Amino acid sequence: MIYFDNAATAIPDEKSIRQAEKYLLHDFYNPSALYSEGHKINLEVKQAAANILSTVADNGFSVIFTSGGTEADNQAVFCGGKRGNIVTTLGEHSAIYSAVNEAKQCGIEVRLAKLNSDGSVDVEHLLSLIDDKTSLVSVIHVNNETGAINDICEIAKCVKLKNKYALFHSDGVQAYGKISFRLNQYIDLYSVGAHKIGGVKGCGALIKRKNLVLKPYIYGGGQQQGVRSGTENVFGIKCFEYAALSRYAEMEESFKRVSKINDILRSRLDSDLFGFISPTDGSPYILTLNAYGVRGETIMHEADDNGLIIGTGSACSSNASKRYSRVILACGYSEDVADGILRLSFSPENTDEEACRAAEVLNKIVKHRKEVME
Amino acid sequence: MIYFDNAATAIPDEKSIRQAEKYLLHDFYNPSALYSEGHKINLEVKQAAANILSTVADNGFSVIFTSGGTEADNQAVFCGGKRGNIVTTLGEHSAIYSAVNEAKQCGIEVRLAKLNSDGSVDVEHLLSLIDDKTSLVSVIHVNNETGAINDICEIAKCVKLKNKYALFHSDGVQAYGKISFRLNQYIDLYSVGAHKIGGVKGCGALIKRKNLVLKPYIYGGGQQQGVRSGTENVFGIKCFEYAALSRYAEMEESFKRVSKINDILRSRLDSDLFGFISPTDGSPYILTLNAYGVRGETIMHEADDNGLIIGTGSACSSNASKRYSRVILACGYSEDVADGILRLSFSPENTDEEACRAAEVLNKIVKHRKEVME
Repeated sequence: MIYFDNAATAIPDEKSIRQAEKYLLHDFYNPSALYSEGHKINLEVKQAAANILSTVADNGFSVIFTSGGTEADNQAVFCGGKRGNIVTTLGEHSAIYSAVNEAKQCGIEVRLAKLNSDGSVDVEHLLSLIDDKTSLVSVIHVNNETGAINDICEIAKCVKLKNKYALFHSDGVQAYGKISFRLNQYIDLYSVGAHKIGGVKGCGALIKRKNLVLKPYIYGGGQQQGVRSGTENVFGIKCFEYAALSRYAEMEESFKRVSKINDILRSRLDSDLFGFISPTDGSPYILTLNAYGVRGETIMHEADDNGLIIGTGSACSSNASKRYSRVILACGYSEDVADGILRLSFSPENTDEEACRAAEVLNKIVKHRKEVME
Repeated sequence: MIYFDNAATAIPDEKSIRQAEKYLLHDFYNPSALYSEGHKINLEVKQAAANILSTVADNGFSVIFTSGGTEADNQAVFCGGKRGNIVTTLGEHSAIYSAVNEAKQCGIEVRLAKLNSDGSVDVEHLLSLIDDKTSLVSVIHVNNETGAINDICEIAKCVKLKNKYALFHSDGVQAYGKISFRLNQYIDLYSVGAHKIGGVKGCGALIKRKNLVLKPYIYGGGQQQGVRSGTENVFGIKCFEYAALSRYAEMEESFKRVSKINDILRSRLDSDLFGFISPTDGSPYILTLNAYGVRGETIMHEADDNGLIIGTGSACSSNASKRYSRVILACGYSEDVADGILRLSFSPENTDEEACRAAEVLNKIVKHRKEVME
């Protein structure tokens, strides 16, 4: 079985999970408890926050653990975009897109910046939408459907030049642990998720500028500096920490390995059958393509029968009723192209051999389909 | 080590955790993915929902998985109490108490019903607060600080007689898996948490009347019937399912065992040193007492040094700045009494011997403290 849907959920990092297992059965105490065993767990949670933070930011930031990237995105929108207008892009994950749609119902104006054909944001258009009533700007770091990278550090700087009071948030779920970057002084909020880098589902974080006073989104016992209540998912948090440290320790090497996998697929997939949506300067972890005239879902199922697991776009879109990806359409592609979309996404655990085999399988499936259709 | 703080987080159910472990490393697929492996996980999540539901409700209800009881409570308040007034009690967990305080900031009137001295709600007062503008009534099922049981089925019925349009919610976190009950037709929403019955932290559910249209609290990919987005915490959900089935299979036996532990402590603790706050007809899983004239925190730390872990009230209150439990004060106790509060809470895994030993340790500690103070 070849697993090439790591952007939906990554191959679990066995070492990190094994390392964190002691928090399931042995060190199970409530981190809010005041006796020494609870206090120790509390320190473990704080250590995890510090270690995760160290991978992408300095001490001007802090980590608020959440139930995942989606909750972190929702907190950014609902607690960051409290008035006036929110400026975001047509290329956002549904966690931002659906949240701003809800904010719209509550009287916030929502302005959506256009995309370039590779899925990156049209920065000029984005900046033109910002005015003195803008309370929040949210730009996805790595587009989850195409892998295009937005230069959020530069964009955030330009945003602050237009409105220094506007908060800048970025959904970093597909960037964190995969591409090299550091949060700069212009970024206020950054969402990350554990299960996209080998951690377990149900854990993520909102990285927040320390001096930014953010309202809680979930109220209760005052955990996580009062910003996110609820007993901490200690096991998930420790897995996240270990997976993050492991990804960052091997980031360059992994990047090269995944780039090679990406290259192999690009060169071996039959250019008469497939077109590439993903830019060559995007994240190598995502390779989105379309098969001319054959439905992506058909190919995906046939590939699955042949031991190759791939996606057809964002897994999170599968619950929506829309047939075509709104992001792919916003890139300027026709419904015909959007119908044939395949997303191959990788993990450092994937191999060159898997890439060769996957190219073979996909070429064969689409070729056969076309022959049948003729 | 004797662990008597199971209301903060229960001793993990090793069997359930081991049984669910395959979802960490092997069956790790995204339940929203459309290929067969993803679809299988989706069915596993649905099976978990059906099994958890079957323990307390009929098919008129459905299960929305959340990140825990706190999130479920927040969803009930913010998505259930949208207008007019919310009626709740002075005995709520901070997940409700802090959430309604926030709702108040948003223009919702909040009415708090008084408590009886055991921590149960004064039902007559509660009902007197309900009028035709009441959108939500929320009453904790088992008081997490005293163990007092509110007869939510009967209360919900009376609530609906006063206002049939008001939603009725109950925080069932300390009741679920511990005391026998079924949700009746008058209850609309019910919160439960996994880690209070041996599951892992970071997972819970909002049980919802099926035909009740509830707005999402977390927006995104449309998971969980569109009501709660975000990739499901599959491992946490399966642990929850197994722990719930196990607790319900042995409920009567566990209830008897825990009742005996409770009885042993009540009879062996020196009545010259301790007073009982918990009612004798409450949940046997919680035994709250006060040591006359000695601070609860002092006793807790000394007990910890002697291998006995107990709580001093809700673990979730430890992050708050208030010294005295607002719930204990609302029961009518003085600050002196509130200062000496200890909460002992049990699990079916606890033993009679532990209860005997704990009584000895506590008697000795408080006796010694008093001697020193004289």
